[in-house]
Amino acid sequence: MESWFFENQTGNFGIKIRIKSVLFHEFSHYQEITVYDTPEFGKTLVLDKAVMFTEKNEFVYHEMLGLVPAFAHKKPEKVLIIGGGDGGAARECLKNPFVKHIDLVEIDKKVVDVSKEFFPEIACRLGDERVRIFAEDGIEFIKRINLNDKESEKYDIILIDSTDPVGPAEGLFRRDFYEAAAGSLKEGGIFAAQTESPFFNENLIKDVSKIIKELYAKSSLYCAAVPVYPSGLWSFTAGSKKYDPRTVNESYKDFDFGGQGLNLKYYSPEIHASSFVLPNFIKKILR
Amino acid sequence: MESWFFENQTGNFGIKIRIKSVLFHEFSHYQEITVYDTPEFGKTLVLDKAVMFTEKNEFVYHEMLGLVPAFAHKKPEKVLIIGGGDGGAARECLKNPFVKHIDLVEIDKKVVDVSKEFFPEIACRLGDERVRIFAEDGIEFIKRINLNDKESEKYDIILIDSTDPVGPAEGLFRRDFYEAAAGSLKEGGIFAAQTESPFFNENLIKDVSKIIKELYAKSSLYCAAVPVYPSGLWSFTAGSKKYDPRTVNESYKDFDFGGQGLNLKYYSPEIHASSFVLPNFIKKILR
Repeated sequence: MESWFFENQTGNFGIKIRIKSVLFHEFSHYQEITVYDTPEFGKTLVLDKAVMFTEKNEFVYHEMLGLVPAFAHKKPEKVLIIGGGDGGAARECLKNPFVKHIDLVEIDKKVVDVSKEFFPEIACRLGDERVRIFAEDGIEFIKRINLNDKESEKYDIILIDSTDPVGPAEGLFRRDFYEAAAGSLKEGGIFAAQTESPFFNENLIKDVSKIIKELYAKSSLYCAAVPVYPSGLWSFTAGSKKYDPRTVNESYKDFDFGGQGLNLKYYSPEIHASSFVLPNFIKKILR
Repeated sequence: MESWFFENQTGNFGIKIRIKSVLFHEFSHYQEITVYDTPEFGKTLVLDKAVMFTEKNEFVYHEMLGLVPAFAHKKPEKVLIIGGGDGGAARECLKNPFVKHIDLVEIDKKVVDVSKEFFPEIACRLGDERVRIFAEDGIEFIKRINLNDKESEKYDIILIDSTDPVGPAEGLFRRDFYEAAAGSLKEGGIFAAQTESPFFNENLIKDVSKIIKELYAKSSLYCAAVPVYPSGLWSFTAGSKKYDPRTVNESYKDFDFGGQGLNLKYYSPEIHASSFVLPNFIKKILR
């Protein structure tokens, strides 16, 4: 018998992935969590019927979210990740030689547990002594930091590694949240959020970019090719208080990006720069 | 009642597109040709159950195949397109100010007729006096040019705008065809072929790149984000006898790429250059 997982990516377009077996299925307090084993992509995490990542291709999204803002920053010692309970963005961030401390705020602890059990290669750094996990609402967390307004509590990098802007992640795409995030960054801090597909989510990208442009000295969109995500082209919106997000900071001029231990399958300083070079139709969205 | 078109892009992965109506369906001598009207992508051409292009997104593939080789060439007066019966690549090529003459060799005349009828915005230049259409086998056509070996018959640019390497297009991915193509180019000529997805077709890309590297002074792979194509990331393999395919030739230093008449929605000189910047996993395929 054939088994397929179907994801409706819009009302009128979807994908199907053949399934070997269902390794895990549970409704957590926040969402439906499924882990499939698939012949095409290996193990695959699905939240509320949308693919979050596949074992085979997760490197693209995680490298591009975890590394671009960090390597644009001169010395990113302290990082906040909102969402990202799978540990992929944290694993990548720790490849930056300056990173001393990551706070990971994942609203759904079940995602952390499932990732540790089924995706040890993605969750591999969640036990690292530099990583502190908070199972709470990222919006409340960031509002608290912003209200306290203590430089010592603030971050060099804030990454929003969220699901789509429906369900638990909805508030992560709102102006008050972006304002609180900007207020939780140190001087020279860099913010980046996943902002969906330029082919399918024009309005979201336009709205978020407008807000980020208002809040930061420098703002830019960058893209990466993420298979299985809607359209295969994914966007990230970056805001920076000081450093140019579009290039690797000169503080890494002696850093060996080709080092075996880093295992970079997508990211390089050249890809960093070229990911900000946008096709005309995307430039038009941002105008 | 709901109607969906399903494309199996590998044995274990596929897409589905909602259908408003079937505008055309016929088995030509070479393949099954279907034109759907779809709410997500507008009119969509499907050959042998694989999407060739959608009205909404065709600009990416056609601009990147039709413009990159042409603008890398100092003065591309004479162009040969193998396949491309829809007219999209020809439409783009004619945006280059030097192009005087395009020979378009499409084995299946029915594709030309269907495109003229259902996709007038893509086929719009097929009636241009600079375009000559041959309804014959591209392999035989190119072998003849190569055998005659007359400089006057040869081309500045040869583009392979083929379907997947099964069925009628199979021979367009073979060494003897690539050799004949190289022999049909003038001195300084540039060749480019669509070479499928880096995520799904590693071996094909590896094999074609190896042959092109042997046949040309310069060879490079470049990529573009084509939604609905398998994985959403598409590759083109370029071989060049003289000019660097990776940059716009200096002969266009006064050319206005932003001109309204050009209507470039993806391509720009910056995208030209950045499309050759490859993620590490693709560089590894080419090694």
